[in-house]
Amino acid sequence: MSDRLARVRIVLSHPTHPGNIGATARAMKTMGLTQLVLVNPKRFPDPQADALSSNALDVLGAAKVVGSLDEALAGTVLAVATVSHTYEMAPELVTCREAAARAVHDAASGDVALVFGTEANGLAVDEVLKCSLLAHIPSNPDYTSLNLAQAVQVFAYEIRIAALGDRVPDVDRAALPTFDDMQHLHAHLEEVLAGIGFFDPENPKKLLPRLRRLIAKARLDQEEVRILRGLLNSVTRVRKS
Amino acid sequence: MSDRLARVRIVLSHPTHPGNIGATARAMKTMGLTQLVLVNPKRFPDPQADALSSNALDVLGAAKVVGSLDEALAGTVLAVATVSHTYEMAPELVTCREAAARAVHDAASGDVALVFGTEANGLAVDEVLKCSLLAHIPSNPDYTSLNLAQAVQVFAYEIRIAALGDRVPDVDRAALPTFDDMQHLHAHLEEVLAGIGFFDPENPKKLLPRLRRLIAKARLDQEEVRILRGLLNSVTRVRKS
Repeated sequence: MSDRLARVRIVLSHPTHPGNIGATARAMKTMGLTQLVLVNPKRFPDPQADALSSNALDVLGAAKVVGSLDEALAGTVLAVATVSHTYEMAPELVTCREAAARAVHDAASGDVALVFGTEANGLAVDEVLKCSLLAHIPSNPDYTSLNLAQAVQVFAYEIRIAALGDRVPDVDRAALPTFDDMQHLHAHLEEVLAGIGFFDPENPKKLLPRLRRLIAKARLDQEEVRILRGLLNSVTRVRKS
Repeated sequence: MSDRLARVRIVLSHPTHPGNIGATARAMKTMGLTQLVLVNPKRFPDPQADALSSNALDVLGAAKVVGSLDEALAGTVLAVATVSHTYEMAPELVTCREAAARAVHDAASGDVALVFGTEANGLAVDEVLKCSLLAHIPSNPDYTSLNLAQAVQVFAYEIRIAALGDRVPDVDRAALPTFDDMQHLHAHLEEVLAGIGFFDPENPKKLLPRLRRLIAKARLDQEEVRILRGLLNSVTRVRKS
């Protein structure tokens, strides 16, 4: 669903600081978003925006500057207002994560927009009421002062996860031992530990299930099972020598 | 579980730019985190850190400066290395969200640490290997350049959600209509629409279920049901006058 990412517009309404526009472009690019729309930016283009974009100059270069929120939202099938609280008569307020899921869902039909207000005051009421969903980043009620680009970062992160899933890069997975391998390891361990008098085979109490649980938590791979079996053999050799 | 937030240490190893330390403090405070630990910061305290903290001066003021990662991790029950890729012999690599869930879980036992490397190079291998979990923010493989404070923001956001749940501020919920209210609305609508010839009651086709679906999606509140019933009454009056 990576095509959905190309349909997400990040709309900044009346941004004051060009540095925030640059940092927004960077935040977008890290998450694979490309469509930046600026409604009446105070200063743009600007060297400070370029500097803060940290090589997301392609996103900045493709940014669209428009004169009104209506222009920014033209053609979108969903507009989400990012807010810190709700408003009278406003559409439903959901979490950032829920909004991202809906945006990615609706992006199957066309462009969707996430709309961010000014650094100082957020969105104006008439801007909020033009949107069909309100979204809120859960935050400290005593200090909700998320920086503009950081709010974009969190939303873009949730959009990426909603579109592509939440996963780590593919890693060469180590080969895993089978049930039989593990049964052999446990039998070997029990034999050696009884042999050195670590526990009494007639009265093992909870020692064996506890060791079994420890080993289960470690989720051994094949190589690690071989290492432990080798260690047990060393103990046996020392004992017999 | 807000006490868990107090047990999360954000550890910055060798941060180069004081502005990033300030922006980190701000990101932490927005999510309710308070423990900042700096390992050999290049410049701290610094006016630029104060400026970028945007009133999170309390977090900056309480920051602990230490000389080694060992000191930063002393007493923690879990140390998570934030990385962009995995390393040979390294502990398990999980997503940022999974790491946050484990950190909040383990914070029941004691302090937990999220460790961030330098702006330019991330964490050194020996630092990564001191941690017991690796965590990765899903990002654009062609451009993984998350700013330090933005990475902290995303992790702190996931920590907050893991500790406190993902929800919007409490809103005065409008009273909802009952099943019976809705049945009356549908009957009224059907009667009026048949009366004005909008559909043929003998052959309504899919019009009624379609209207029912539309109304279900709108999830009407009691007030909205009253408004629609009033509208239907107005139509009836006009027809009869």
